[in-house]
Amino acid sequence: MLIALFTDFGPAGPYTGQVRLVLERESPGVGVVDLLCDAPAFDPRASAYLLAALLPELPEGGVCLAVVDPGVGGERAPIAAECDGRWLVGPDNGLFAIAARRARMVTVHDITWRPRRLSSTFHGRDLFAPVAAAVARGERLFGVARPNGGRSVERDWPDELDEVVYIDRFGNAATGRRASSLPGGTSLRVAGTELRRARTYAEVAAGQAFWYENSNGLVEIGVSGGRAAEALELGVGTPVKALLAT
Amino acid sequence: MLIALFTDFGPAGPYTGQVRLVLERESPGVGVVDLLCDAPAFDPRASAYLLAALLPELPEGGVCLAVVDPGVGGERAPIAAECDGRWLVGPDNGLFAIAARRARMVTVHDITWRPRRLSSTFHGRDLFAPVAAAVARGERLFGVARPNGGRSVERDWPDELDEVVYIDRFGNAATGRRASSLPGGTSLRVAGTELRRARTYAEVAAGQAFWYENSNGLVEIGVSGGRAAEALELGVGTPVKALLAT
Amino acid sequence: MLIALFTDFGPAGPYTGQVRLVLERESPGVGVVDLLCDAPAFDPRASAYLLAALLPELPEGGVCLAVVDPGVGGERAPIAAECDGRWLVGPDNGLFAIAARRARMVTVHDITWRPRRLSSTFHGRDLFAPVAAAVARGERLFGVARPNGGRSVERDWPDELDEVVYIDRFGNAATGRRASSLPGGTSLRVAGTELRRARTYAEVAAGQAFWYENSNGLVEIGVSGGRAAEALELGVGTPVKALLAT
Repeated sequence: MLIALFTDFGPAGPYTGQVRLVLERESPGVGVVDLLCDAPAFDPRASAYLLAALLPELPEGGVCLAVVDPGVGGERAPIAAECDGRWLVGPDNGLFAIAARRARMVTVHDITWRPRRLSSTFHGRDLFAPVAAAVARGERLFGVARPNGGRSVERDWPDELDEVVYIDRFGNAATGRRASSLPGGTSLRVAGTELRRARTYAEVAAGQAFWYENSNGLVEIGVSGGRAAEALELGVGTPVKALLAT
Repeated sequence: MLIALFTDFGPAGPYTGQVRLVLERESPGVGVVDLLCDAPAFDPRASAYLLAALLPELPEGGVCLAVVDPGVGGERAPIAAECDGRWLVGPDNGLFAIAARRARMVTVHDITWRPRRLSSTFHGRDLFAPVAAAVARGERLFGVARPNGGRSVERDWPDELDEVVYIDRFGNAATGRRASSLPGGTSLRVAGTELRRARTYAEVAAGQAFWYENSNGLVEIGVSGGRAAEALELGVGTPVKALLAT
Repeated sequence: MLIALFTDFGPAGPYTGQVRLVLERESPGVGVVDLLCDAPAFDPRASAYLLAALLPELPEGGVCLAVVDPGVGGERAPIAAECDGRWLVGPDNGLFAIAARRARMVTVHDITWRPRRLSSTFHGRDLFAPVAAAVARGERLFGVARPNGGRSVERDWPDELDEVVYIDRFGNAATGRRASSLPGGTSLRVAGTELRRARTYAEVAAGQAFWYENSNGLVEIGVSGGRAAEALELGVGTPVKALLAT
């Protein structure tokens, strides 16, 4: 059994640590892995495409505690969703929409349990962590499933998001589009530049920008021996366009 | 049993990893959680208020290995303090002063044990980590308690620190003052601006600055949908002033 | 048993988390410690000196999964090397050259096993992590040792690297030279400034630059109560020169 964290808490700060303290207390011995700590802050939409791409790395039966929650303390519901045998616990703000859309089997539950202490700004610690720990222990702190399954967490977002959703440490820019959605020879237009596809950095001349299928299946933009984000001035939200051969 | 780390080592670098290697070797199987890795660097005073606010999250019986230690290699003593059933291990430089002041039961021990290898610049690894691991195992590598208890680690610092002590990833600015010390309707003056209190971001118009009780009980300054630190030019040490109704 | 990670993946991002998910699945219960996550990116040479300095902190029998791998997807071989009872798993690009050179007993193995999924850009997850987990379990997913031992991973690099190899959170600059290679009174010239040796920050006047033996035995440049990297404009690659007394 395993709990993965997917948050916008950042690599430092007091938030992840407090969540981990709750998990250690409520599900001792269960492994906890920080899968992504710097999801696009305040941005459940971009985060939803990243989460959907990373979720298959979690073993079946695992729990993903996912918190990108700009509306904390407001009206959005806390939910637990089971997608093809993996559990997602977090806010119903679209964050789970893409993962649920791609899954074959989805059930969605409103979390009915409430903790004795529920702060206004940190439901990750007070509500979602205890529920995730309970799921890992085999307890379900929620009622019957929503009747509409995955459709109940849907948003009006495209199947593939033609925008940059993440800049990694090496300056590579991952997009919300899956490479499998594009024919092999497709080029990409981004920031006024047309990029051809390659398989890996080693195939490309130094300093050359290109795109490739990243290790999670997403279209990603890189520069061999360089930093694409700076070279092409890319950031989260930069639009990209697939140039389908005609 | 649990060991929490509270340091200014930062999210990267070789220091936390080396401390964890010692803990794995000396207290295998004991959970280790990075509670805060970016306490204000070189600043035991601001860190002391953060530590006191975060310590209640640690289960009773837990050990907090706390290292904000600009005087490493100098004269300050290494100590272990028990505050209401939680252990603090680290330097006697004021870092534990506020936690000890707020505790009902405090004992303070000079650490008398010395390791075979004691580097001049990394007592966190060489001295504090083995002692923290020993406490977690139930061993006490120190002599009788200091006669004056918590008073022996005191500093001439206020009960509530009216300064920013931490900027989080979202640009929110936590102060060293507890919200419970202020009447409900109190406003806050910071950087020439008067801020009203709200309960959560969702209550406030987008772009509006306000203050709220953060999830650890501290007065914190935020901007709904924005970044308070940049909007109001706040940093660690920025003074704040509570405007008590007259 | 213990697996230490030495990477240039950075403190955030999805890479370390995915490696940890593989390790949790393939060697459950084995402790995993992030020893260094911000080794000089794309720079196996500077990283090799850091790795050699940090490796003695790993208990004997431990495994170091080391990934600084700009040539991922290209021709460099994947290897597992045993150096004085510690295992190194990663790319044969020089990263292990200095550790192997300093070890008394070295064996080097080409990793012959290949995973079902081998992405072009993330061998850390797909190839090195499963092999490291297997080593931790006692399995060897590789053939007979290379006949030339440590010489088979050598590079034409000096025994001591007179360059800055790492800037830490406090602005201290570690070099690739071991302090034990220098007589006691040696001064250091860096960025046009001559620095004397001290034992620790507490010995030096505030604002003064100096050098000292860091806690891993390396020559390191610091400023008492300040940040050497900014004060002296140091970065990874800045040359230093030992001024041996004549």
